[in-house]
Amino acid sequence: MCDEQGAGFAADAYARMNGLGVVCITYCVGGLKVVNPIAGGYAEKSPIVVISGSPGIKERKKGPLIHHVVKDFDTQQRIFEHVTVSSTVLYNVETAPQEIDRVLNSALKHKRPVYIEIPRDLTYSSVQSGDGRRSGEKGRGEGEHSVADSKRDNTSFSSKGIYKDNFTPEMTEALKEVAAMINSSNNPVILAGVELHRYLIQDKLLSFAEKFQIPVACTLSSKSVISEFHRLYLGLYEGAMGHDSVREYVESSDCLILLGAFVTDLDIGGLASKLDQGRTISITSEKITVRYHSYDGIDFMDFINKISASKDIIPRKQVPVYFKHLYDLEFLPEKDKKITISRLFECLNAFLNDDMIVVADTGDALFGSTDLTIHKRTEFLSSAFYASMGFAMPASIGAQLANPKLRPVVLVGDGAFQMTGMEISTAFRYNLNPIVLVLNNKGYGTERSILDGVFNDIPMWKYNIIPQMLGGDGKGYSVETEAELADALLEAEKNTKSFSILDIHLDPYDKSPALQRLTESLRKKAL
Amino acid sequence: MCDEQGAGFAADAYARMNGLGVVCITYCVGGLKVVNPIAGGYAEKSPIVVISGSPGIKERKKGPLIHHVVKDFDTQQRIFEHVTVSSTVLYNVETAPQEIDRVLNSALKHKRPVYIEIPRDLTYSSVQSGDGRRSGEKGRGEGEHSVADSKRDNTSFSSKGIYKDNFTPEMTEALKEVAAMINSSNNPVILAGVELHRYLIQDKLLSFAEKFQIPVACTLSSKSVISEFHRLYLGLYEGAMGHDSVREYVESSDCLILLGAFVTDLDIGGLASKLDQGRTISITSEKITVRYHSYDGIDFMDFINKISASKDIIPRKQVPVYFKHLYDLEFLPEKDKKITISRLFECLNAFLNDDMIVVADTGDALFGSTDLTIHKRTEFLSSAFYASMGFAMPASIGAQLANPKLRPVVLVGDGAFQMTGMEISTAFRYNLNPIVLVLNNKGYGTERSILDGVFNDIPMWKYNIIPQMLGGDGKGYSVETEAELADALLEAEKNTKSFSILDIHLDPYDKSPALQRLTESLRKKAL
Repeated sequence: MCDEQGAGFAADAYARMNGLGVVCITYCVGGLKVVNPIAGGYAEKSPIVVISGSPGIKERKKGPLIHHVVKDFDTQQRIFEHVTVSSTVLYNVETAPQEIDRVLNSALKHKRPVYIEIPRDLTYSSVQSGDGRRSGEKGRGEGEHSVADSKRDNTSFSSKGIYKDNFTPEMTEALKEVAAMINSSNNPVILAGVELHRYLIQDKLLSFAEKFQIPVACTLSSKSVISEFHRLYLGLYEGAMGHDSVREYVESSDCLILLGAFVTDLDIGGLASKLDQGRTISITSEKITVRYHSYDGIDFMDFINKISASKDIIPRKQVPVYFKHLYDLEFLPEKDKKITISRLFECLNAFLNDDMIVVADTGDALFGSTDLTIHKRTEFLSSAFYASMGFAMPASIGAQLANPKLRPVVLVGDGAFQMTGMEISTAFRYNLNPIVLVLNNKGYGTERSILDGVFNDIPMWKYNIIPQMLGGDGKGYSVETEAELADALLEAEKNTKSFSILDIHLDPYDKSPALQRLTESLRKKAL
Repeated sequence: MCDEQGAGFAADAYARMNGLGVVCITYCVGGLKVVNPIAGGYAEKSPIVVISGSPGIKERKKGPLIHHVVKDFDTQQRIFEHVTVSSTVLYNVETAPQEIDRVLNSALKHKRPVYIEIPRDLTYSSVQSGDGRRSGEKGRGEGEHSVADSKRDNTSFSSKGIYKDNFTPEMTEALKEVAAMINSSNNPVILAGVELHRYLIQDKLLSFAEKFQIPVACTLSSKSVISEFHRLYLGLYEGAMGHDSVREYVESSDCLILLGAFVTDLDIGGLASKLDQGRTISITSEKITVRYHSYDGIDFMDFINKISASKDIIPRKQVPVYFKHLYDLEFLPEKDKKITISRLFECLNAFLNDDMIVVADTGDALFGSTDLTIHKRTEFLSSAFYASMGFAMPASIGAQLANPKLRPVVLVGDGAFQMTGMEISTAFRYNLNPIVLVLNNKGYGTERSILDGVFNDIPMWKYNIIPQMLGGDGKGYSVETEAELADALLEAEKNTKSFSILDIHLDPYDKSPALQRLTESLRKKAL
């Protein structure tokens, strides 16, 4: 990557797609550049392994004034402790394999970043191979629990040693209570959250929903957890920003099943959210809660497996679900009509196909995307809760390396592009072929709705000139009208050899339908 | 700035030039992007004030899942504690003025970064004006110790309350001992360090050196602390990388006065440094040390003032100092000769004038700069100890805003430019006119000497196309030969309305004379 910041976002995306991502960085001058991306991974539950070199053990004894050192030799680790679930400095060659296993297990278990630091004079030390088991367990295998093997079998990393056939009293009681609550309800709904992505168990959601015929809504950060063409798909629930029909369906449910979903402000639209805890079952990796009481000591994955296999839950009759996609799958451009954000997303909705993944940056690139119809699952990536600008362009690189069959469609505001967008150079370097849409509204558009001023203006770059800067087969387009947008997208689709970038000129005060709904809802609230 | 990272570096440069810099950032998603620049400010003693917003006190009570939050509400402050000398969250409107004064005083006293966080619902609170005094003191003024007033009068912020006429017993003893050691020496030398820049007391160094006729060497991070044309200027002392004549002069001194200088590896060239502590007086803000013993409780500025005024030190006879500038002040380009790093610096040396400030990024941009003759003082900026890549371009913006009379000459490798170089857009935005020299050696050149491989290669950008991307009056040049370089520099000098950028094509394995000396010295050591 061009800069460590970009490497952090790319590793985050890779982790979201494939279950674990790694970023390797130089001590402090490199490492401290990824604090923000790693913090984002912590906030949004993405298992990223940060690997850093550091001064050698021998050098440390000579004196503290070695270049790249900030305060103490452990300053970098101390900082990362605040944004990781586990960290280690491999001072000791003997215990290194166990330490590495411990930290990697922690990443896989909590789906959050971890930190491994290697003093440089120990880099080439020989160690016994690790066994991937939890500390306290005996025996030493030959890497049979290597990360690659265990990636999609998270239960083997369960912290509490509860395995599939282990019906504890609390498990039995919780399963019974949840089944009874579902059975006695009239209109149960699943609100499927981001953890289903992180634990790579979108399949389990699907089989649970289909088996018992319960409709599914998703949240902003879990968008694409289920195909948006699925018969049981209700739509996106996001409080003030969402559609009335979805909101009413979810909020009037007498049995709301929060599955791996956290009630955050951006995600579920905090301000206007009216979820009734007295009618809610919440199943997350942190806690199982039924109405107002919680069960401790129940493993998340174990519970999901058991509830899916439950014979106590009575499958429901097929329910009528009317999900209205906002946009048609057809877009007829008006030749000389200036492009608007709404029409841009309408056009994009028609353009997307099964082999594309949408990566949206913060701002109206994200809000506007909420109305896009995602074809399959896991084809939408964003920093929807932590909301760090500059995520999308570098993340698209991690995403495409994680799954080369998917072609990234990057939606990024001009403000965010100026932060990390030149990582498009890295995409070019590795022959990736993202289609990058710069939503150029001449500044920090979303901020204008909150407080406007010259501080929201930014310099205009001619983003379509970037391919000239890089040479090669990248293509650039300056887009002002609907027809130009439609044409540029078609050309970009054909240009599979390299990236394409569209500089899409928008009115600074134009808003997506989702942002309009949010504004309208806040306005009503104020009246 | 385009990205918060750039804002951090710019504030650092501003602080180095004017005694205090400020960076304002958004909570977490912005703030955690400046951890690295602020860490650099800590390591290199630059007083930067970080001001961050944060969630409102009322919102925090509702629940923790507000966007931009990582772990806890205080996570950002906890992280910044590791890279600042003082921090505060202004929870309490009553104590806010005192808290702000306490933190600002700390920045001015320690010359290191500090952190101030404001919960957003307290932003418009009215407060009594602060009085700038240390806690424990009585009385409330009307801002008579405001930061602007005190900027160049650091003694009034002394922590220990020792004022000018206060001769404590330890002060008396230390002054006497230092005077005696200087008087009994044959060839005393001052090694002038970075703290003279930070405390803005380059004048005091000059009057001390001139009064007692003691020659002055400087270090990599203090380069330009004295005019390099000054009769008493010896040259740059930097161990293995330095010139033999300077090294021999300094290392053979029987009275080495380290003035505000720290013995770091990059700065003083650690490996080959042979300073004899038994013949050394060290005067820094942290400690006064004579040979092997230290004096506690003596204020740095107070001591500098008193030692400069000492009547016990006998002025020496004028000493012969032979500083040989490596490069002539004249450069005759050979028309079609391919440009090398050595000739580049030779050309630059002839080009520099009194109204320019050199801002050098890490790598050979920095090493090569060591042989440049700086005309006046404080006209050389770099991250010479912390050595963070990406410093120079954004720093040049802070530097020129700090002193608009100086025109920045930015020396930056292509690797570092790809990290933060697009901040040139910010220079463009504010009508600044840096002359940016991209030392384009097709990758991480300095790393190639340590361990080479494809990981040192980076994509080629056509840096000279950037002005087209931005529009306006910026000029770009692609430089391959000596004549092209000389011509481009002359044109750039004339283009005072906007920035100029030179894409200078260098051999990937070319090295500056300084880097060659370093390599040679290490090779000899290995034999």
